[in-house]
Amino acid sequence: MAEKQGSVGLVKAQGVRFDAPLTLRSGAVLPGFDLVFETYGTLNADRSNAILVCHALSGHHHVAGYTDPDNTDKTLGWWDNMIGPGKPVDTDRFFVVGVNNLGGCHGSTGPKTQNPATGRPWGADFPVVAVIDWVHAQARLADHLGIGQWAAVMGGSLGGMQALRWAITYPDRLRHAIVIAAAPSLTAENIAFNDVARQAILTDPDFHGGHYYEHGVRPWRGLRLARMLGHITYLGEEQMAEKFGRKRRPDAGSYGFDVEYEVESYLHYQGDKFAGWFDANTYLLMTRALDYFDPARTAGGDLAGALAVAKSEFFVAAFSSDWRFSPARSREIVNALVRNGQDVTYAEIDSVHGHDSFLMEDAHYHALVRAYMKRVLP
Amino acid sequence: MAEKQGSVGLVKAQGVRFDAPLTLRSGAVLPGFDLVFETYGTLNADRSNAILVCHALSGHHHVAGYTDPDNTDKTLGWWDNMIGPGKPVDTDRFFVVGVNNLGGCHGSTGPKTQNPATGRPWGADFPVVAVIDWVHAQARLADHLGIGQWAAVMGGSLGGMQALRWAITYPDRLRHAIVIAAAPSLTAENIAFNDVARQAILTDPDFHGGHYYEHGVRPWRGLRLARMLGHITYLGEEQMAEKFGRKRRPDAGSYGFDVEYEVESYLHYQGDKFAGWFDANTYLLMTRALDYFDPARTAGGDLAGALAVAKSEFFVAAFSSDWRFSPARSREIVNALVRNGQDVTYAEIDSVHGHDSFLMEDAHYHALVRAYMKRVLP
Repeated sequence: MAEKQGSVGLVKAQGVRFDAPLTLRSGAVLPGFDLVFETYGTLNADRSNAILVCHALSGHHHVAGYTDPDNTDKTLGWWDNMIGPGKPVDTDRFFVVGVNNLGGCHGSTGPKTQNPATGRPWGADFPVVAVIDWVHAQARLADHLGIGQWAAVMGGSLGGMQALRWAITYPDRLRHAIVIAAAPSLTAENIAFNDVARQAILTDPDFHGGHYYEHGVRPWRGLRLARMLGHITYLGEEQMAEKFGRKRRPDAGSYGFDVEYEVESYLHYQGDKFAGWFDANTYLLMTRALDYFDPARTAGGDLAGALAVAKSEFFVAAFSSDWRFSPARSREIVNALVRNGQDVTYAEIDSVHGHDSFLMEDAHYHALVRAYMKRVLP
Repeated sequence: MAEKQGSVGLVKAQGVRFDAPLTLRSGAVLPGFDLVFETYGTLNADRSNAILVCHALSGHHHVAGYTDPDNTDKTLGWWDNMIGPGKPVDTDRFFVVGVNNLGGCHGSTGPKTQNPATGRPWGADFPVVAVIDWVHAQARLADHLGIGQWAAVMGGSLGGMQALRWAITYPDRLRHAIVIAAAPSLTAENIAFNDVARQAILTDPDFHGGHYYEHGVRPWRGLRLARMLGHITYLGEEQMAEKFGRKRRPDAGSYGFDVEYEVESYLHYQGDKFAGWFDANTYLLMTRALDYFDPARTAGGDLAGALAVAKSEFFVAAFSSDWRFSPARSREIVNALVRNGQDVTYAEIDSVHGHDSFLMEDAHYHALVRAYMKRVLP
């Protein structure tokens, strides 16, 4: 099969073990941990071209390229349209690192991996992690890779929150924070949607208090519902209207509760697919980390106060149709930085794709990121 | 206990049996049925002051007054602030009828009642009903009460859709259609939320294909999730932010998945309460009736064409913070009526209470309804 143009090509995950315990924000101590990561491009001689890409709720370390040369489309990284040779984040210029976060289900230490204290999977005993814990773990990965300072830490959604947290927690270890489709904290409505998703999982009889692995079952019903609900909040309302409207499936029956409308079919497909591969305990952890994220809190609710310690420059981008993390939320970040006299570039991008816009290939959006990356590494 | 001022006071439901079969829109035939209803006020000599109040998804026939004199607050009708002596719909002037719809779970024939073919509860075998079926059944109730023409048919949300359907299906049998916080059809996003709610119920292991009554269980987990999700869509985002924000419960633990935020506590309370008394099969039926409602469909998608047969005057009201059935959807109805040269009054009311605004006691809103009611019966 021909190499995809602009692709980093075939990639292979790497793993690293950190034996020193990690004290989490909750006070729990993780007795060493593994991280799985991928890298693309080449670290330059002065180690000044490294970019960390942080993933969102359902993401992982496989950001770009493909893992199976015979199945490139289906094994493509989740941000392959953004990262690769000649792409907005140009791997001919940058050394890009993707990592699966602690608590994840793609190889890094998490609920599915073995709890050394019991010899069985952690399950529900895996400690609840916060965004800052991920950032500390990522800092160890940076040490391991010999990266004293990232050229940029970037991410969309929950990934953007990690970039923000990096800027506050390790101000000397990044030159740029690229914060896309994120928010400085969740609203009550955001928390409410997370709560329903979690309750779907927690009340699934196959959840078994989070120790379902040992019962040979998975709370797929709950995870499926969580993902279906999530999808509604990821899409733009206008986009849903255009894509599905009130269209019915050609083969639909009627006057029953099976799938009749196209939008039902889409949600079931997405829910089934996700429930087939994602881990429910990880979903719980990721949504709780989202709930907790609120860097302003330790500064008495003053976001500008919390951001004042940052030394990086900021690129903040939001999408007009994103009602999960609306542009107004991104502007809170921008306004706080402006108030501090900090260096921030803000882009509010017209898009019909809702929260998912940050993952989409959009010429204007990509041109803006491309332009900013010239500033990251002139 | 003192009689509540402006209350219709103690009320008692009545029942009526209709023995003639009813052919439903699906083609299924219901072999006779019962309706449970309440009435308030007095039908005048020329029978010109009768108002039918149609209920929404989780409503019923108990619209005003109380059913237990020792527990008036907890047994108050769901629209008691709107209907009573001296209230916007003044029972000193009007004879008001509330009815539990077919498929309901409050006494009218529905999934919980006995299927004459089997002698057991209908359960999932109860035929899927459409809004037009409710209207036909309500017309029989009008016949029974000797009401040839309603002064008005009114309702909010799904209740407003019934008023709209009355105007189209029985143009000679009502003088006014009062359509509040409704829409001419559901959007893809509306259907999507209904779908997730239904899937929560349908995949609950205690659903037993809709025949859970016989198993001595109830799919409360699914019904609870459905209601929690519903509540998010009933509230205004701004209202949620003000009421709950990121506030934590005073007694909350942390770093777990129990309730920590006030908004979680609220949703759990609402979900638990609802799951304790509502019937899951009825929830399925009501949401499907919502999905199907689309009077423009039989007019080739032309809402004005569908409404052209109506002879009533219309009062249409929408609320600024309602994102479930936004004012834009009400304006579709208004614009169609205006195009036809039909008589319509439209009010777009500022409110922070989202879709639930139609149930709230708001001076401006109530004044508008009160003023319109003078037109209904000068």
